[in-house]
Amino acid sequence: MAGDLVLSIDGMGGDAAPDIVVEGVALAARANGGVRYLLHGDADRLNQLLEQHEAAKAVCEVVPAEKTIGMDVKASQALRQGRGSSLWNAVAAVENGQANAVVSAGNTGAYMAIAMFRLRTMEGVHRPALATRWPTMKGGYTVMLDVGANVEADAEQLVEFAIMGEAFQRAVSGEERPTVALLNVGAEDQKGHEEIRAAARLIREARLDLEFRGFVEGDDISKGTVDVVVTDGFTGNIALKTGEGTARLVAQLLRESLSSGVMATVGAAIAYPALRKLKTRMDPGTFNGALFLGLNGLVVKSHGGANASGFAAAIGVAEKMARSHYREEIARNLSRLARAPAAAAGEAS
Amino acid sequence: MAGDLVLSIDGMGGDAAPDIVVEGVALAARANGGVRYLLHGDADRLNQLLEQHEAAKAVCEVVPAEKTIGMDVKASQALRQGRGSSLWNAVAAVENGQANAVVSAGNTGAYMAIAMFRLRTMEGVHRPALATRWPTMKGGYTVMLDVGANVEADAEQLVEFAIMGEAFQRAVSGEERPTVALLNVGAEDQKGHEEIRAAARLIREARLDLEFRGFVEGDDISKGTVDVVVTDGFTGNIALKTGEGTARLVAQLLRESLSSGVMATVGAAIAYPALRKLKTRMDPGTFNGALFLGLNGLVVKSHGGANASGFAAAIGVAEKMARSHYREEIARNLSRLARAPAAAAGEAS
Repeated sequence: MAGDLVLSIDGMGGDAAPDIVVEGVALAARANGGVRYLLHGDADRLNQLLEQHEAAKAVCEVVPAEKTIGMDVKASQALRQGRGSSLWNAVAAVENGQANAVVSAGNTGAYMAIAMFRLRTMEGVHRPALATRWPTMKGGYTVMLDVGANVEADAEQLVEFAIMGEAFQRAVSGEERPTVALLNVGAEDQKGHEEIRAAARLIREARLDLEFRGFVEGDDISKGTVDVVVTDGFTGNIALKTGEGTARLVAQLLRESLSSGVMATVGAAIAYPALRKLKTRMDPGTFNGALFLGLNGLVVKSHGGANASGFAAAIGVAEKMARSHYREEIARNLSRLARAPAAAAGEAS
Repeated sequence: MAGDLVLSIDGMGGDAAPDIVVEGVALAARANGGVRYLLHGDADRLNQLLEQHEAAKAVCEVVPAEKTIGMDVKASQALRQGRGSSLWNAVAAVENGQANAVVSAGNTGAYMAIAMFRLRTMEGVHRPALATRWPTMKGGYTVMLDVGANVEADAEQLVEFAIMGEAFQRAVSGEERPTVALLNVGAEDQKGHEEIRAAARLIREARLDLEFRGFVEGDDISKGTVDVVVTDGFTGNIALKTGEGTARLVAQLLRESLSSGVMATVGAAIAYPALRKLKTRMDPGTFNGALFLGLNGLVVKSHGGANASGFAAAIGVAEKMARSHYREEIARNLSRLARAPAAAAGEAS
């Protein structure tokens, strides 16, 4: 087994695990060379599935885990009883230096709790953040964070999110200088909460190596006005879910519009393939691979309902992150932040 | 000129004023009997436009105003220099008891500032709130507030928003017992900010006359899980704009999907009427008439870009509100709130 990079995979996490996970690894193995996989879970089932995927089998090592954490298990319970599970072991492989990153489609709360407990936050980072990607009218996607790891964030934490989100976007999109903005209720300097205004001042005064564009509003997420949208976990979670809900509403209204009136039959025939295409484009699977940023280790979350190509996309994100200079980049900006005039965060402009 | 109800209309507010405004009044006059209109603005132009609308002319009184507040004027400037404008006079007519409600499609910030300055908040209401309506998968709409009048809201203010939003939804939809929930990042009691949890406790302890359903998440807005979604103005503004942005994104992606591939030509022919229908359904004009709630007077905001039927819809909202028992209903619940154990807001459950 050769390969310069090792990815630790939770073989049992997700709605259709382990089948989809093994298929996803097989797709990723075909697409990306030089990667080895540690596949944690039920060894018999995983080995059996690997029999159908020759290429994957050659680069996979199955690591037996005695149990699986269900999708409904609470985070606190997962911490108490999760030891020895495929998810726990997959995270531990990164902690022990056996793997460069971990990928799971399992229980988000349990995953975040275990990753945080085992890997701890990086030096200079107060709280980790969950970063996701959202398709835009420009054809690419916006990175948005935090979308739910924390309920609140002060100015300094928002700046840390900006630093981490920017490095994530560069690693995954290849865009050299991703633009960054804070989510607010208006573009003017005096708008919004004090923490957001203080974060903007802090980014400027700390002279971070960032293309900072000030404030953007909710509709700028889908417009793709900037490459990275920074907010607290409460607002980010509500924006993300409101967006998902609206996408489903519009698709439903459109389905209704297309299947009524004189052209109903033709409309329906046209509508279904178009709606399927749309679903692919909007589906979390397409931009699959949310990152739990700020820990001592790369932690990638695949959507629980992702199909094999969605899971392969999440593996692709893990690989890109592992091959990037993400850690060095954020360490450089975090140390600039640490040296910034302490007054900046508190004082009104 | 007869009529039991008088509505004060800013004849000069909005992107296509005064033409659209007069057409809107004409449509409303045809639909709703027993209403008189005070039409504030450039008397020559308004009278000229009314010549084309016999029925409207019979129920309109033109009130000359010497100036118009532009769409770009800042709120502070409107307060200093707005006296004598059509917007100012339209609000003043409610203050002076000449009209039961005011409707304008003009500058939102200026309108809110002038309405707040002239009408003041109702007794028992700490801060007014901007309430809007959002279409749902169930076919009706959700009332959401606050969508931007205030940046922050404490527990008591959130409860006041719940009381006002519920009465607004009943007045406009005719639904006897609208259901109400607080917007949060999860349905469980321990989720979210302390203010939201305290607001939930307060609603229960104050024994308000409300169908309170606890917490909902962002995707519940479009689902129509409850009839009234309550949040602070920062979160509400971002949710609303994220939703609008997503709706535009999905419509664009769908247009692209429908006009590519083998069925492209047929697809395009089908797509355009469907997208137009969709636009009508999602358009602010369809559910036009946001309310600036909590003032000593009914203040209805029409979308600046509304067409004549959109403006007529906003007039319809003003009429329904003016004919409802909105004031008595919220006064009853506000007094229950005032009698609630003071401890409820502060103490952890």
